[in-house]
Amino acid sequence: MTEPAAEFAFIARHFRPLAGPAALGLSDDAAVFLPPAGRELVVCADAMVSGVHFLPTDPPDTVARKLLRVNLSDLAAMGAEPLGYLMTVSVPPDLPPDWFEGFGAGLAIDQAGFGLSLLGGDTTSTAGPLVLSLTIIGHVAPGTALRRNGARAGDGVWVTGTIGDGALGLACLTGGLTDRTGHLAGRYRLPQPRLGLKLAGVVHAAIDVSDGLVQDLGHLCRESGLAARIEAALVPASDAARLAGPDWLERRLTGGDDYELLLAVPPVAEAALLAAARATGIPVTRIGVFEAGPHAVHVLAPDGADLVFDRPGWSHFPDRPR
Amino acid sequence: MTEPAAEFAFIARHFRPLAGPAALGLSDDAAVFLPPAGRELVVCADAMVSGVHFLPTDPPDTVARKLLRVNLSDLAAMGAEPLGYLMTVSVPPDLPPDWFEGFGAGLAIDQAGFGLSLLGGDTTSTAGPLVLSLTIIGHVAPGTALRRNGARAGDGVWVTGTIGDGALGLACLTGGLTDRTGHLAGRYRLPQPRLGLKLAGVVHAAIDVSDGLVQDLGHLCRESGLAARIEAALVPASDAARLAGPDWLERRLTGGDDYELLLAVPPVAEAALLAAARATGIPVTRIGVFEAGPHAVHVLAPDGADLVFDRPGWSHFPDRPR
Repeated sequence: MTEPAAEFAFIARHFRPLAGPAALGLSDDAAVFLPPAGRELVVCADAMVSGVHFLPTDPPDTVARKLLRVNLSDLAAMGAEPLGYLMTVSVPPDLPPDWFEGFGAGLAIDQAGFGLSLLGGDTTSTAGPLVLSLTIIGHVAPGTALRRNGARAGDGVWVTGTIGDGALGLACLTGGLTDRTGHLAGRYRLPQPRLGLKLAGVVHAAIDVSDGLVQDLGHLCRESGLAARIEAALVPASDAARLAGPDWLERRLTGGDDYELLLAVPPVAEAALLAAARATGIPVTRIGVFEAGPHAVHVLAPDGADLVFDRPGWSHFPDRPR
Repeated sequence: MTEPAAEFAFIARHFRPLAGPAALGLSDDAAVFLPPAGRELVVCADAMVSGVHFLPTDPPDTVARKLLRVNLSDLAAMGAEPLGYLMTVSVPPDLPPDWFEGFGAGLAIDQAGFGLSLLGGDTTSTAGPLVLSLTIIGHVAPGTALRRNGARAGDGVWVTGTIGDGALGLACLTGGLTDRTGHLAGRYRLPQPRLGLKLAGVVHAAIDVSDGLVQDLGHLCRESGLAARIEAALVPASDAARLAGPDWLERRLTGGDDYELLLAVPPVAEAALLAAARATGIPVTRIGVFEAGPHAVHVLAPDGADLVFDRPGWSHFPDRPR
């Protein structure tokens, strides 16, 4: 009755090194901290499931970093700075015992790189696939959080980086596509959250592209009560994505896993956006325009015809409308 | 490309009614709120997995309320007040479509009763059992959060309520024990977080009993660098637990799922503890004492012999010491 349980040893070994001062060494029931004075808190949570959000064969360090980065991307979409995170892991019995070595190492790299630390969490068993759930806490100057509902007719539709690499990377990893450079698989496994862009007072609305460009643009449209028209030829592609050819256009625009920002930018603020982009080295590209009308996303092919896709993006319940 | 995905409809139907103002209608990437002025934040996360923390046959409303209450119990153990919560749900394909009706109804009841609201979350699919992860955010006056490491030799070991009902309730639900009153199963499904006790300045240390009385007392001992001696005969039992008889003593003391508070109380503060207990109607009982010595928990049987158990409490990794 004096031996710490294996679970306790597991937490001490893999997670305690990641804990910040507020976490009280992960030895209490909760973390305690004074929030930054005069700031609003920004909080969100995303879960990742083996076989759904990552491949069981993905390296554990990139799974960890993707888990953190997916949540950091949500903070980026709100214009917030990261502070800390909590995490629950539900572990299947057949996961190799050393899997969490790499997982913890990945978290250590990225929490140092992005300036946040582990605040707490929970470790449980499960009979099913590995489930990772992360809650991130960030902060922002009061009133400056970016929203999805602020786009106005005439605003440009802008994106950061390149679109479609993540979805094509998944295709590479599952055998449907070849990319000798490894760029696409790398982007699937390790997205780059677009933190640091000074977007407050510049953009009218923002979202991060996680479910697919068309679907996430649809979210901006719905929340803002607008339509949008984008040109497929303007959507920036990486060299590797371009090499995949036009057959992969739909996948690029609807596949998701981009974690780029999608922005509504009034024409008057374009210079400010470009300056912010230059200051951070994050590329930004105008791909279309918001228009008055019932919420809908129109995608124009190079020949000017409307592209129609089988589905606008990823859904976890494709067959279960409720 | 204008239809909201089934996933969006699912969130709108089941979770949006639970969202507080900070959640921005669950339509943004994150929630935004100004933390309570001059308060420290207290945050923690607990996951529950079907077949591990609850039975697949448990009613969805009590599963929801248990998920919330398990986390509220952690806040109670820190002496904190609840503010809000985030939740991720990973849903298997075979869950009945109306399961989340009852789940949402259960959350609605308890978030009203305990004074908190939904801030955000994520809904994903999984090929395995249902996994529910909840992060709770509370607050406390600076410097008053209760810790596990403050117990001193000579402090009494106190518990709230009765111990063992949850573990015996699970035995009832799985066929190992009979309880005609339904009290034990009710306590397994619907624990009572002990919020509201004024413990700051009264107790030296606190923890909630989730993994089993002996194991959680062991955590207090380890963090405080002490041993503890408790008397099995003093550990309060409900009428239903007493009826189960002495064969169930080990299960009562090590089974967990109590969500009662375990407290280190200096003799000089006993009157204050009893006054706090009377003010809230929460029973408290002294069951033993903390002592100097290497961290260990001694449980005395009614005949004065040391009781030795097969295991001190629940572990998610019983077979995988690392």
